[in-house]
Amino acid sequence: MAGEYELIKWIRAQQNRGDLVALPAGDDLAILNWRAGDLLLVGTDQVLDGVHVLSRVHTPRQIGRKVMNRNLSDCAAMACAPAAAVVTVALPRSTDLAYAQELYLGMRDASDLFGCEIVGGDTASWDGPLALTVTILGRSDGLAPVRRDGAQIGDKLVVTGALGGSLLGRHLNFTPRVELARALARKIRVTAMIDVSDGLARDAWNLCLESGRGAVIDADRIPIHEDALAMFRRDGMQPLDHALFDGEDYELLYTTPDEPPVGTVIGVITEDRAVRLRRGDELRPLPPRGWEHRLSVQDPPK
Amino acid sequence: MAGEYELIKWIRAQQNRGDLVALPAGDDLAILNWRAGDLLLVGTDQVLDGVHVLSRVHTPRQIGRKVMNRNLSDCAAMACAPAAAVVTVALPRSTDLAYAQELYLGMRDASDLFGCEIVGGDTASWDGPLALTVTILGRSDGLAPVRRDGAQIGDKLVVTGALGGSLLGRHLNFTPRVELARALARKIRVTAMIDVSDGLARDAWNLCLESGRGAVIDADRIPIHEDALAMFRRDGMQPLDHALFDGEDYELLYTTPDEPPVGTVIGVITEDRAVRLRRGDELRPLPPRGWEHRLSVQDPPK
Repeated sequence: MAGEYELIKWIRAQQNRGDLVALPAGDDLAILNWRAGDLLLVGTDQVLDGVHVLSRVHTPRQIGRKVMNRNLSDCAAMACAPAAAVVTVALPRSTDLAYAQELYLGMRDASDLFGCEIVGGDTASWDGPLALTVTILGRSDGLAPVRRDGAQIGDKLVVTGALGGSLLGRHLNFTPRVELARALARKIRVTAMIDVSDGLARDAWNLCLESGRGAVIDADRIPIHEDALAMFRRDGMQPLDHALFDGEDYELLYTTPDEPPVGTVIGVITEDRAVRLRRGDELRPLPPRGWEHRLSVQDPPK
Repeated sequence: MAGEYELIKWIRAQQNRGDLVALPAGDDLAILNWRAGDLLLVGTDQVLDGVHVLSRVHTPRQIGRKVMNRNLSDCAAMACAPAAAVVTVALPRSTDLAYAQELYLGMRDASDLFGCEIVGGDTASWDGPLALTVTILGRSDGLAPVRRDGAQIGDKLVVTGALGGSLLGRHLNFTPRVELARALARKIRVTAMIDVSDGLARDAWNLCLESGRGAVIDADRIPIHEDALAMFRRDGMQPLDHALFDGEDYELLYTTPDEPPVGTVIGVITEDRAVRLRRGDELRPLPPRGWEHRLSVQDPPK
């Protein structure tokens, strides 16, 4: 890409500088005043053209938003407060300065909503397709992080929203459940939590395996998104299967012994290390499969 | 790649768990006990096939080492202690589990040397070329971070090693100058520092522009690496030009008003905002150009 120095200069001019940031992007590393007593949560996620997005179809603004939101959703899953992010962008040589700026502004759309600052990054041009990564730093900020491994026998299994068919557009424009997660963790005992990125089936398995437990999920209770119905009309796959296996819903799946103030109870944690689905009188193991690459040019931009 | 779950399981089994890490990779985010009073330094760097490495020529072990070492070198440039890292890997579909493991082991070769722990990451397969990123977290650990912007008029400009011709192999097997940087910052006033990744010319410009100063560099004093001479015999480009413009030396360039205990004084910081090169009686502006993509299959693996 022409104008990489221009881009860096432009990005530096966009930066906020709150109490956290002692030195923003521009030096070898950014310097943060990490608050004493705050646990530091860190993770990273990538968005690859042809896997998580389609640059032929999706705008750079949407793509930037998605890579940041995927990471913010990991903060939600731990009930921590997003604090700062660093990003890398590998740009196809055909892209221009405006395209890179839109990617950045998409990331900022997402991170600004939570006061999360982009404090550094690395941009390069290459002969490959578009690839972005975000690394997110979260603060415990007065709440013990909620892990995946604390589900207890008899806990309710709860999901915070309707599932399925996210490829119709929600995978690009979801709002990470950060505030909801923190409100929940303040109000009730949340014993385990995960965000539904790989699909309800796989993520329920992940949560249960980490906790050394199992679950029974009632098919009738799973909230099915209208997008799952729309997908069924396209591809003939049952709406329930879309809700179980599509993924990229970015709702929260959590367990609690308490009365859940938010979400739908879809099942219960059990002793055996298996996730099973109840349909009427039938109780069958739920296959642990989940999100697979099914993006196509039919995927409409929203 | 087949066996992504196998890979994740294998990586989790490799993990150390020191005092810093309250919860290692495996949940949505890792949890770190950040020590009160420690500034947090953070940055990220990518390594792309065809730009920074050649997967046809370089081994995955070398490639893994390089992406980690580039980030550790940023820690050196700030005189901070590397603490933790998260990584992403975008793997071509043709690669297998053993290849991914070798990438990881290469990163560990580099990070283990400094007690830096890999606490998380994200792996995906795609139709694109190999792309890796590392995000590094450093601790100030009792030393004020050394920035690029503190050079003072009259300071000596010092480089810690010989420059040029790194493409003959040093770009793959350098040792980041972390310990040297911290020893320097303990011993003398280091007013500004940068690692020479883009080449002496460009990095001297970067340091000077950030400091609002200039420099005069004596061509005769620049330590020229024997690899720059070897490159000259291949391509006819003057060894001095290799030393000025090749980049990827990963030596430190620093400024100090004190007697430097380590390195070669190559110039002096001046008031005007320009970097000039003195050759005999001639004083000419140094072009701010630097590292450009010149990898080729002639680049021999080492």
